[in-house]
Amino acid sequence: MRDLSFSKPFEVRKMIRKGEIQGPTSGMCRGYVQGNLVTLPKKLAYDFLLFAQRNPKSCPLLEVTNEGCKELKTIATGSDISTDIPKYRVYEKGKLQGEYGELKSIWRDDFISFILGCSFTFESALIDEGIEVRHITNKSNVPMYITNIECKPAGIFSGPTVVSMRPIPLDKVSKVVQITSRYPGVHGAPIHMGNPKLIGINDIYKPDFGDSVEIKDNEIPVFWACGVTPQAVAMKVKPEIMITHAPGHMFITDIKNHELAVL
Amino acid sequence: MRDLSFSKPFEVRKMIRKGEIQGPTSGMCRGYVQGNLVTLPKKLAYDFLLFAQRNPKSCPLLEVTNEGCKELKTIATGSDISTDIPKYRVYEKGKLQGEYGELKSIWRDDFISFILGCSFTFESALIDEGIEVRHITNKSNVPMYITNIECKPAGIFSGPTVVSMRPIPLDKVSKVVQITSRYPGVHGAPIHMGNPKLIGINDIYKPDFGDSVEIKDNEIPVFWACGVTPQAVAMKVKPEIMITHAPGHMFITDIKNHELAVL
Repeated sequence: MRDLSFSKPFEVRKMIRKGEIQGPTSGMCRGYVQGNLVTLPKKLAYDFLLFAQRNPKSCPLLEVTNEGCKELKTIATGSDISTDIPKYRVYEKGKLQGEYGELKSIWRDDFISFILGCSFTFESALIDEGIEVRHITNKSNVPMYITNIECKPAGIFSGPTVVSMRPIPLDKVSKVVQITSRYPGVHGAPIHMGNPKLIGINDIYKPDFGDSVEIKDNEIPVFWACGVTPQAVAMKVKPEIMITHAPGHMFITDIKNHELAVL
Repeated sequence: MRDLSFSKPFEVRKMIRKGEIQGPTSGMCRGYVQGNLVTLPKKLAYDFLLFAQRNPKSCPLLEVTNEGCKELKTIATGSDISTDIPKYRVYEKGKLQGEYGELKSIWRDDFISFILGCSFTFESALIDEGIEVRHITNKSNVPMYITNIECKPAGIFSGPTVVSMRPIPLDKVSKVVQITSRYPGVHGAPIHMGNPKLIGINDIYKPDFGDSVEIKDNEIPVFWACGVTPQAVAMKVKPEIMITHAPGHMFITDIKNHELAVL
């Protein structure tokens, strides 16, 4: 497989569209923002937009398409959201109905797509500052957990916040808070650190999504709100249909990570 | 008139509700966030929510009510948005139809209210850092201008960005950018500074809203996106009905200014 670390997003989106890339997008197009996808029919879009407004840490919106429009006009000119993600998940009435390489046969003219910021952006910033990100070292997926922190409900949408976890050495935690605070558009500062049990995680070595990572003696687990939250919400509230990316298979945008930094 | 600088927001909202306060709210409840109001019927709410998402600098959302609900449950417990603002404006098909002290007879069960952050918050932060805010020194309203900067359209909503202007001494401009960057929830960093003509302002001494202020020789005009933008948009796109606060007559919330600081 060709090294795509320094490829341009529009080139990689084209390869994905042609089916030449079907796996996770981690590490591709270094420096560019990758995003989570939520696609819903128009009649559910107001409730979800309000849900995102009320839960900006788990659902930081980067762009919302017009009804039926497949292009992300601002963050990815010339893109096609029905083909430019390597793997999609289709949830029907809360059940994962299947995974697909493209959405052509499923697409409806009343679909609206929401792209949410993803932690890949702040992970790049952490690595640039010399902070190890364990699951990247391991070449595995970040561990994610369903917590007891309820999202603020909006219309039909309600459910638990999903968090991602990264073990951080004790003397680096403040630095990590500072770095990620600069990126409210990609989940921002941690929402919890230290004791997993306080947020309803009974076994830190058994994540609900992704892969387990070791926490060393001089490290504490640090938790960020996660863009997989809408998938946990879909499983709970069972909307007629919700389409998402498959974990790790993200939408690659044309905007640079540093454009999302507030300071 | 009693000094309300150090009163609690719920007390002042109660006085407004009883009709004991009918004027501007500037200076009341020092340290607490005040907000702009936009109230719309449900059928226009999706387009406006999307408009706010696409134009976060002019329309930074603090809270959106549930349909028909008069209480801002998160930012002002026990509030009533139909009575707790000293003066409302009702726009019908783009025309200012009138100003009212309360909305009881106008209220509809399909109304949704949007509270947008207001520059009072960052003005407090500027004053705390020793920066003079000219219109506050003058006890006048901030000068506001309709610019040639188009908002990103969303559904029926489109129109020009309205900006507010504060003259800042040359050696303080960077500091002012730093301070206001901390507050993306209340318009954030300036969107322009220096040459008013470049953003379509032909006479800086003739604001479209508010009062003119002097710009001294050692100062440059600095411009921020303004929460009056939705009123300029309403005049252009002529929605069936849109209710706003009257300029300077804001909604006083229970949240502290510093809670909106991202850093």
